[in-house]
Amino acid sequence: MNDSPLTPERILDAAEEVLCRYGLAKATVVDVARFLEVSHGTIYRHFPSKAALRDAVAERWLHRVSIPLAAIAEEQGSAVEQLHRWFEQLMIMKRQKVLDEPELFATYSAIAQEARGVVQAHIVELVNQVAAIVESGISSNEFRVTDPQAAAKAVFQATVRFHHPAHASEWSDPDIDRDFAQVWRLLLAGLVVVQ
Amino acid sequence: MNDSPLTPERILDAAEEVLCRYGLAKATVVDVARFLEVSHGTIYRHFPSKAALRDAVAERWLHRVSIPLAAIAEEQGSAVEQLHRWFEQLMIMKRQKVLDEPELFATYSAIAQEARGVVQAHIVELVNQVAAIVESGISSNEFRVTDPQAAAKAVFQATVRFHHPAHASEWSDPDIDRDFAQVWRLLLAGLVVVQ
Repeated sequence: MNDSPLTPERILDAAEEVLCRYGLAKATVVDVARFLEVSHGTIYRHFPSKAALRDAVAERWLHRVSIPLAAIAEEQGSAVEQLHRWFEQLMIMKRQKVLDEPELFATYSAIAQEARGVVQAHIVELVNQVAAIVESGISSNEFRVTDPQAAAKAVFQATVRFHHPAHASEWSDPDIDRDFAQVWRLLLAGLVVVQ
Repeated sequence: MNDSPLTPERILDAAEEVLCRYGLAKATVVDVARFLEVSHGTIYRHFPSKAALRDAVAERWLHRVSIPLAAIAEEQGSAVEQLHRWFEQLMIMKRQKVLDEPELFATYSAIAQEARGVVQAHIVELVNQVAAIVESGISSNEFRVTDPQAAAKAVFQATVRFHHPAHASEWSDPDIDRDFAQVWRLLLAGLVVVQ
């Protein structure tokens, strides 16, 4: 038995490991407790249900995606380039995950399907980051849209083919980068027009 | 036993019925033969494998989608409005299918997952229709893009959230029409800019 105190972080580490081994459908809170050599009652004191534990795992996982993106959203300089870097980073992270660990990616996609509230909050956070970039682009006269929040949501939704896990099987298409470049060119052209 | 000659059309009708009842995983060529009261050898004379029959079902199903869209692509008048009508019609058809017959839609989505070649050909056909509209918009000075094929593919891919079956669960979102309107506004703004 590990003598370090049983923090929520340690429980989440164990839950990730168990989910990775058994998948979402088969993994249980008892498996997590067994992995940590504690009773399942001990886990329930921190996470009152399997759903709560699943949501916390999803939240931490998505947090790892939003942190480097938040750093890009806070950079200075050309908003056009910053926006491109932001989406490029998002796509790189998603693709790396699916290529490096396809089974783990599938498990996390299944978790995301069920942890709807967590995913929605994550998307709101990402769209807010994009909106901040669009807003700075409006200030610098690079963009001429009037509603940064609406424009950010539209750009995010118009690029789902390139970052939404439902399209992961299309990311190995040899044309995928050219396809993104074309969509990007069109969206960017739209952002510089008064609408 | 039905005395009318056993045409490919009749076999496809039967295959659709069988797929609708049992789903793709469970349906067999023997089920289709039983439904038609013929031997499975008779089916194989028309369709040499279950995959060939599945592809033919997918092809006919997708054809029902492309026919009314082709009619819109051939209309005269404002290309801006024509392009909007085309995508609206595509979205209406997809949504109707998923709302009216969710199980059948799931079956067809599973078929489409496997009949990749048929689906790819269908998408090429749809993108060509969009390209024809964009081209007429370039002629009429409504659009200022230079490569209608690339622009058509970009508009098609930038709107997948609203017509790709992988996003069907998002179509019941009360914001879906407003979301599309925002994406559309951005794409249309892009189309009128020299790129």
